[in-house]
Amino acid sequence: MAKTPKIPDPTIERLALYSRPLEALIESGSPLILSEKLAELCGVSPAQVRKDLAYFGEFGVRGVGYDVRTLLKEIKHILGTDRQWALCIVGMGNLGSALVENENFRKRGYIFSAAFDSDPEKIGKEMPCGLTIEPVNRIKELVRDFHIRIGVITTPPLVAQQVANLLIDAGIRAILNFAPIRVRTTDRCTVENVDFSVKLENLAYHLGTL
Amino acid sequence: MAKTPKIPDPTIERLALYSRPLEALIESGSPLILSEKLAELCGVSPAQVRKDLAYFGEFGVRGVGYDVRTLLKEIKHILGTDRQWALCIVGMGNLGSALVENENFRKRGYIFSAAFDSDPEKIGKEMPCGLTIEPVNRIKELVRDFHIRIGVITTPPLVAQQVANLLIDAGIRAILNFAPIRVRTTDRCTVENVDFSVKLENLAYHLGTL
Repeated sequence: MAKTPKIPDPTIERLALYSRPLEALIESGSPLILSEKLAELCGVSPAQVRKDLAYFGEFGVRGVGYDVRTLLKEIKHILGTDRQWALCIVGMGNLGSALVENENFRKRGYIFSAAFDSDPEKIGKEMPCGLTIEPVNRIKELVRDFHIRIGVITTPPLVAQQVANLLIDAGIRAILNFAPIRVRTTDRCTVENVDFSVKLENLAYHLGTL
Repeated sequence: MAKTPKIPDPTIERLALYSRPLEALIESGSPLILSEKLAELCGVSPAQVRKDLAYFGEFGVRGVGYDVRTLLKEIKHILGTDRQWALCIVGMGNLGSALVENENFRKRGYIFSAAFDSDPEKIGKEMPCGLTIEPVNRIKELVRDFHIRIGVITTPPLVAQQVANLLIDAGIRAILNFAPIRVRTTDRCTVENVDFSVKLENLAYHLGTL
């Protein structure tokens, strides 16, 4: 049997990027897209688009382009986004509250199934999305009961590591960390850190070169 | 005079990424870092690190590594983050409220100087950071008075384009958009879209390959 090649993280992240305009194209009824156009919409080079897609076989026809529906379906299959994933979130401040109401998550199959906080004033409160805030000592139980696979951290930085440990201990193998601190995990758990200021630095660079 | 080469956006974004562990290394007192180590901390290949840094001249010494302080100083200078930038933000829901209190922004020189909303119940409210929420019809006046260069959009998707137009009309040339919709701008205005779900797709891919 042929082994699936190890695909580098930046390629995976770009595949997710490529899927955004493809979704919009399907809504607008366009059947085909050239790699040059997709590259332009995503802000990468056409050579990069072709190289990334070549990992997964021959999607496109030279001069004609890619079939939008087939390409999006393949990308979603590769990324595992053609299925639903149960998420939990820890830290129900402003950011946590904003994320559980985010339509993009649900639309892409990421469903918040539990929300936790340590503040007695917040525990038991029902949010607009329908979830009730649970105490952190129920993490293990609810992760198991709701088959939660991904944990989101939106706590203050000082407790983020402790929360990561609780999530890993509960069996979580993928963490999206919004706390402005690098959390350490075991080899078996993947962490993605979200740092908004990286995007600002890109903008500042452009302003500087105007 | 030598022309400064046009630096691609992904390189700029990676420079911002590289600066994060360098800041941590300075705090921990490490004077030198090898490209292999920096690459590992940032999740990119060592060849990519060397290629990105080579745009800006010779920073490193083969086998010895880069001087952490010099490298960070150079990166900050290139990115324009060795100075302060005034920001405004439009849409003071949960996400907007979370962003204005974010320590990472202020620490990196991004200072929120004005916050806007269209909701009469929110206008006039003072936030923990000290800013008072202003009506959107004051955008032009306050952008001018506070020398605001970057606009942040955290509105619902349906009004994001209208807000982008107001910001551009007020002279803003750089927009960070959190609304889950692509906003159109003129050639003179750069937009960075923030989409949290891209990071989730990376995590889902890793879970699928476990």
